[in-house]
Amino acid sequence: MWIVPEREIAGLVSREAAFDAVEQVFAAMAAGRANNFPVVREAIGHENALYGFKGGFDQLGGALGLKAGGYWPNNLEKRGLINHQSTVFLFDPDTGRPVAMVGGNLLTALRTAAASSVSIQHLSRPDARVIGMVGAGHQATFQLRAALEQRSFEKVIGWNRHPEMLPNIQKVAEDADLPFEAVELGDLSEADVIITITSSFGPILMVDHVAPGTHIACMGTDTKGKQEVEARLLANSLVFTDEVAQSISIGEAQHAVASGALASDAVIEIGRVINGDHPGRQSADEITLFDGTGVGLQDLAVAAKVVDLAIEKGVAIKVDI
Amino acid sequence: MWIVPEREIAGLVSREAAFDAVEQVFAAMAAGRANNFPVVREAIGHENALYGFKGGFDQLGGALGLKAGGYWPNNLEKRGLINHQSTVFLFDPDTGRPVAMVGGNLLTALRTAAASSVSIQHLSRPDARVIGMVGAGHQATFQLRAALEQRSFEKVIGWNRHPEMLPNIQKVAEDADLPFEAVELGDLSEADVIITITSSFGPILMVDHVAPGTHIACMGTDTKGKQEVEARLLANSLVFTDEVAQSISIGEAQHAVASGALASDAVIEIGRVINGDHPGRQSADEITLFDGTGVGLQDLAVAAKVVDLAIEKGVAIKVDI
Repeated sequence: MWIVPEREIAGLVSREAAFDAVEQVFAAMAAGRANNFPVVREAIGHENALYGFKGGFDQLGGALGLKAGGYWPNNLEKRGLINHQSTVFLFDPDTGRPVAMVGGNLLTALRTAAASSVSIQHLSRPDARVIGMVGAGHQATFQLRAALEQRSFEKVIGWNRHPEMLPNIQKVAEDADLPFEAVELGDLSEADVIITITSSFGPILMVDHVAPGTHIACMGTDTKGKQEVEARLLANSLVFTDEVAQSISIGEAQHAVASGALASDAVIEIGRVINGDHPGRQSADEITLFDGTGVGLQDLAVAAKVVDLAIEKGVAIKVDI
Repeated sequence: MWIVPEREIAGLVSREAAFDAVEQVFAAMAAGRANNFPVVREAIGHENALYGFKGGFDQLGGALGLKAGGYWPNNLEKRGLINHQSTVFLFDPDTGRPVAMVGGNLLTALRTAAASSVSIQHLSRPDARVIGMVGAGHQATFQLRAALEQRSFEKVIGWNRHPEMLPNIQKVAEDADLPFEAVELGDLSEADVIITITSSFGPILMVDHVAPGTHIACMGTDTKGKQEVEARLLANSLVFTDEVAQSISIGEAQHAVASGALASDAVIEIGRVINGDHPGRQSADEITLFDGTGVGLQDLAVAAKVVDLAIEKGVAIKVDI
């Protein structure tokens, strides 16, 4: 089997490759050819850690396996390690034997950034010029960097609960030769595309903050109780997601569906748009919203690409098991 | 991290070591210090394979992780590989980083054999002399070999739906210098200990086949619908198990509980006996029955021991991840 250590990932997988892998697997999911397995997520009662597994099988792409790992909140302070730790394991769908193990930390950041990018590519107005960020932490830099490649953006605006974090995304804008402006939430109505990427447990982005025709990618909500945008905003939008079951239970749509503001069958798998089964955005005035909940198949798809690239470049470690 | 290839397992882990590991983790489970996570088991729609994950965390033993793999029914015929394929992954509970990957095929056989042995050690009469086998496939040889070490057995008797399989267990008996006799089901009343290890979907061992004072280890039922013994037999026995939740839903007790013949709270975790919290067998006439459903923590416990032994013997492969 092949092992691709975490340290090699950055040199292997481009944003384009991650985009293609995630786009393909979203399409396979919507075509009924790729399935995520039930998610296991447990508080283990040690180090306040959350640990679990996200698995799946993509019949079209051939990826079978899981991402295992979780969140160890004391890692950074106690040990200088990052708090999110994960590893992807791929298996041969023909035999059940393990074929690869891939460091999953950077890969998770890249696949999450690829998901919002896929949504921007397929759902935002082609003439989008201003991108607004809600959230400016580490993951926000990945989301913004990938998003900037999807449209001819001319300006980045951003808000963060702790403004001292904003230089993180300002640097990404400047690296792309774009002006950056720190704004109030109300000023986000200037944006054509908004990405929310926070760990909020209450709505930050409200109906009044969003102009007609905007595309919003909500990337922070992946747990019961989390919320980034006002439920009414979903009721006013055409809502897309990676996986409907997750969207309405642990994703951003959970609140709008629970309150009855949004019918659960109104939430559309983005893969249908990729497959040409759904037209996606239908007018320049409509608000589109992508609820990115994060599925195991994204990890598997990007990991499978990483393994191919690592073998090609000679940096995969072969172990005779 | 460490990798212990499948080919090394046979030279590393003794039946005694597997017994100790499984006994300890059953004790930790009953003490509320070790938990199995929800089991994921999916028909993947390819090669008729069943694939999934059994994970858990043992706070006392320190093992965190999962066994991943499943059943590929065409492996042997198409590819000369065994049909059951699994791999164990261990993680550091302090940091969430992977620490070891261990071939899980032989290990699964050993931990399953260890479970019935632990039950025989703690629940059968000390003067047990005849052991009866229901089932004579590959796994039956592991169960019998381990069981023979728990009491001073003087004779092995066995039944199998296909009698041509019986030489499998006859050989194990002869290797232990014990006489073997092929019997009818009714003759199993001669046995002091009976192990059932089949893939049956209907009762084989009936109340009339079992004498007072027998200990029965039911090891074949791990799925809804499977059944090896008459439900009434459980109603007449003191019933123990590895994990109550599995026993009453997918284990041998599922039928007796569903029919009302057995109260679900009558099923006793064997770890309580190991811990001295429950007296176990209380008379020489009583029938005790162990419903061995198989939990992920068994795999993790034996795998953790394997890793220690492999490092000690210099056969673990170190990979710098």
